[in-house]
Amino acid sequence: MTKFETIGLLGRTGSEMVLDSIAALDSLLNERGIRVIIEDEIAKNIDNCAIEIATRQQIGEQCDLVIVIGGDGSLLGAARAMVRHGVPILGVNRGRLGFLTDIHPESINVEVTRVLDGQFQQEERFLLAVSVLRDGEQIAAGNALNDVVINSGRSARMINFDLYMDKSYVYSQDSDGLIVATPTGSTAYSLSAGGPIMHPGLDAIAIVPMFPHTLSARPTVVSGETEIKIIIGDCHPYVSCDGQVHLNTAPGDEVVIKKRAEKLTLLHPESHDFYQSCRDKLGWSERLID
Amino acid sequence: MTKFETIGLLGRTGSEMVLDSIAALDSLLNERGIRVIIEDEIAKNIDNCAIEIATRQQIGEQCDLVIVIGGDGSLLGAARAMVRHGVPILGVNRGRLGFLTDIHPESINVEVTRVLDGQFQQEERFLLAVSVLRDGEQIAAGNALNDVVINSGRSARMINFDLYMDKSYVYSQDSDGLIVATPTGSTAYSLSAGGPIMHPGLDAIAIVPMFPHTLSARPTVVSGETEIKIIIGDCHPYVSCDGQVHLNTAPGDEVVIKKRAEKLTLLHPESHDFYQSCRDKLGWSERLID
Amino acid sequence: MTKFETIGLLGRTGSEMVLDSIAALDSLLNERGIRVIIEDEIAKNIDNCAIEIATRQQIGEQCDLVIVIGGDGSLLGAARAMVRHGVPILGVNRGRLGFLTDIHPESINVEVTRVLDGQFQQEERFLLAVSVLRDGEQIAAGNALNDVVINSGRSARMINFDLYMDKSYVYSQDSDGLIVATPTGSTAYSLSAGGPIMHPGLDAIAIVPMFPHTLSARPTVVSGETEIKIIIGDCHPYVSCDGQVHLNTAPGDEVVIKKRAEKLTLLHPESHDFYQSCRDKLGWSERLID
Amino acid sequence: MTKFETIGLLGRTGSEMVLDSIAALDSLLNERGIRVIIEDEIAKNIDNCAIEIATRQQIGEQCDLVIVIGGDGSLLGAARAMVRHGVPILGVNRGRLGFLTDIHPESINVEVTRVLDGQFQQEERFLLAVSVLRDGEQIAAGNALNDVVINSGRSARMINFDLYMDKSYVYSQDSDGLIVATPTGSTAYSLSAGGPIMHPGLDAIAIVPMFPHTLSARPTVVSGETEIKIIIGDCHPYVSCDGQVHLNTAPGDEVVIKKRAEKLTLLHPESHDFYQSCRDKLGWSERLID
Repeated sequence: MTKFETIGLLGRTGSEMVLDSIAALDSLLNERGIRVIIEDEIAKNIDNCAIEIATRQQIGEQCDLVIVIGGDGSLLGAARAMVRHGVPILGVNRGRLGFLTDIHPESINVEVTRVLDGQFQQEERFLLAVSVLRDGEQIAAGNALNDVVINSGRSARMINFDLYMDKSYVYSQDSDGLIVATPTGSTAYSLSAGGPIMHPGLDAIAIVPMFPHTLSARPTVVSGETEIKIIIGDCHPYVSCDGQVHLNTAPGDEVVIKKRAEKLTLLHPESHDFYQSCRDKLGWSERLID
Repeated sequence: MTKFETIGLLGRTGSEMVLDSIAALDSLLNERGIRVIIEDEIAKNIDNCAIEIATRQQIGEQCDLVIVIGGDGSLLGAARAMVRHGVPILGVNRGRLGFLTDIHPESINVEVTRVLDGQFQQEERFLLAVSVLRDGEQIAAGNALNDVVINSGRSARMINFDLYMDKSYVYSQDSDGLIVATPTGSTAYSLSAGGPIMHPGLDAIAIVPMFPHTLSARPTVVSGETEIKIIIGDCHPYVSCDGQVHLNTAPGDEVVIKKRAEKLTLLHPESHDFYQSCRDKLGWSERLID
Repeated sequence: MTKFETIGLLGRTGSEMVLDSIAALDSLLNERGIRVIIEDEIAKNIDNCAIEIATRQQIGEQCDLVIVIGGDGSLLGAARAMVRHGVPILGVNRGRLGFLTDIHPESINVEVTRVLDGQFQQEERFLLAVSVLRDGEQIAAGNALNDVVINSGRSARMINFDLYMDKSYVYSQDSDGLIVATPTGSTAYSLSAGGPIMHPGLDAIAIVPMFPHTLSARPTVVSGETEIKIIIGDCHPYVSCDGQVHLNTAPGDEVVIKKRAEKLTLLHPESHDFYQSCRDKLGWSERLID
Repeated sequence: MTKFETIGLLGRTGSEMVLDSIAALDSLLNERGIRVIIEDEIAKNIDNCAIEIATRQQIGEQCDLVIVIGGDGSLLGAARAMVRHGVPILGVNRGRLGFLTDIHPESINVEVTRVLDGQFQQEERFLLAVSVLRDGEQIAAGNALNDVVINSGRSARMINFDLYMDKSYVYSQDSDGLIVATPTGSTAYSLSAGGPIMHPGLDAIAIVPMFPHTLSARPTVVSGETEIKIIIGDCHPYVSCDGQVHLNTAPGDEVVIKKRAEKLTLLHPESHDFYQSCRDKLGWSERLID
């Protein structure tokens, strides 16, 4: 059985509710004799914090589990930070309906105890690695668990680019931008742009145009092994990772996106069911009209 | 028969091709003894310009026809400027495929001559008037022939707002923004966002959500008489008119959009056919696959 | 004030719940001394029916109000039957969520009493008249409150046709079919095919392709005054009115669709609000994910 | 190098153009001393057919390559027949634009010669196997290279069903039907229903609702290893394989769809490029409007 000896706590800052859940978790983990480390960014908000404090980096190096308290946004940031350390993540939901943070704060005692007892589902999710190349040199890079979005930095202002997959020219496009999404991200921004829902276990990447200036553009799904290259046209779009990290580009830059080698391990309660989440969060099974 | 005695020339700046068409038009109009006035902004680019020069405002006041040389973008700007003066507009296409500028530059002599001889179609198009109200006071205003777009000023960054139509609450929405389009604008940005094509003669307004954070949002079409009000939530979106004029907003501001009373008169060659334009420009009638 | 002296009862057959509501209505109307007539088709299901019985035709001729008990489907049939007689219709909902039948059966006493007292909203809805012409002769005809659908009679079997609007050629299409919807029908089948929601008061018709064999086809909205003509290609599609009446066609037939001159009058409780119905039935305002 | 010693000819019947290409192929293959067998169904249309004649079954057993002359429809039928024999297929296009039949009839001599010389791309495509189970017994079965479609057998007549994936309940749906498509089929019917384009090499299956009676249904992509089960509700839909073979169902039947173990081998000219086909056939890279 997996035994967790050192657990890191990450979370959304500026929320009293998150602090409540942290106190509950700290108490639960202490009782079991587990070493608890809290991220310095949240610790700042706790008066006389009695928990061991460390940076996100140190947490990644020292912990064998990280619990994230917040919404899907908090978990995305934690995932990008932890993936290089191979530390698994468990999410406690203190945001709006989340696909990633599936433990309800009311159930912390019961659900986290079960996880500590080894009763959990373990799932691997892949991230995208994005590089921006100028004259062949990498000038910026990032990771994304949900999606890499290339866009003008302004809605309704078009960009233009050429798309290549595995060195093959695909198309040239004028549009507001392009979403490159993982299965994890397929229920997030990509979905609102008309992208398909992809099962989290699928080894595939979706390419979804944003308001394309042609009627023939459609969402496309390719193998997770595909190298996607976007050559920027006469424009200066941003490259956003999970909507949280933004890279600049210039005309002629190459934006290369491919699957990151290391996977993220996501823990879920044993009762977790992806399609149940879809029914709960997307309103599946609901009827429309008579 | 309508007789045009003073004709203004407006157009896209910075294009040699536009200047060529202006020379051709000037020569044609001079031959017929018509007074020609050219906008000061373009005249700057003409060495020893022999044509009478005036501001856009003066052109509106003195001309009984304005010819716009450029793409749909140039015509949109001219339309917003001319609508208050009631001057009809004729478009010569020096941009990409246009729905609005339908005279081909090669055909200037033949087609413009026919228009001057009274052989043309005349069509009224309505514009939207938009006001931004803060604490009941108007703080900004604009016009749009195509569309009013409310958006975050950054793709993939959500805004939230409440929508009202004729004082009735419609819905609250989290999305990248909202497009409010005229029939004229229904073949432009709105179309790329999934909005319906509306016949130019329809007295209706389309409301099209941009990447809404719900699966139940759909394009909606209401009467052209409808007053549309958007109350801005906790965000600072821009309000864009035809993608060319941008107004700022703040939380709680009311953005009121309704049909402008004065119509724009658009002249077309007699052969003009809206559905032909759709077939040419949207690829209608083309077949997909076997 | 409008005074209703003779009221007809129509409804879905084969439902005990409908019979319960009929009994409640009959009792309420008798108390007020109103003459009540019930359609023969439902009366068959009532043992020793004490209510005056008549055909749908006779009800149309003699009543000054018809109350329909059932779902939207029942009301569609009643609407097509009553429109020629100019009798207004009020709907009691005994089906699934309905846009048309808006009195809840639990509220019959309160809500119908208010209507009888003159407290109601009155709304005009238009119907489509469809004719099938062969060699210039009409061979079949029908009416539709929601939509006229031309389709192969088999999903995934394509038809082909040419579309004209007001004598202008629009496009040729290979598809599973075409939906021509009124504003009333815009929240029904047309919506599931990607058509826009149209406000019930809009004087417009939506043309929505069904699985078109081209990526350039889009929903189109035209004035309610438009005559729509479909010339059938090498196929034998059905023409369906509200999904309830089916007409046959053959290659070369012309299917002509236009607004019927007589309007249907629909009564609603005073509290009726179209956008509230959209929020209730379409899930508007609901949020998706964090 | 692969050496083809016996080649079967299959094709669309009733087309003079197909017969022309068959004659050209027969002559080319004879010159190279290759044994040629033609399907009996086409041979019927050839006067004094000098080619060896056999059934489709015999061709599968005896040939080491099958050339299909026709459109994608002809190739779909050939694929379903040949997959059990493991015979590779090469397509000559005598239909409309095809994704599968990529040799142009004008180029038969050059292109087929190259293939015979071993200059070709070889690609594996998977098929779907569908079974209809009643009370646990299989009552019907089929294969599909493009898609399995469950539908009412009548457009605009809804069916209802429960969907399961790998034994997990997914959703219940009222709709016109459901498309289950392979990557090969993703550019065919599924695309017109809003499904994503999937790269032919992707090991995935798309599930695309047809006119669903809810706004929350979306195309879903799952691993190619997924077992998809549809439990039929109170309706009698058809199950169609590639739109060519139709199976009947009744309430309570289980329709089980999964990847067939044997793959189809498809040969292409060396110049074949999937994205080039998309650009040619879907109009990718085309611009819309200015």
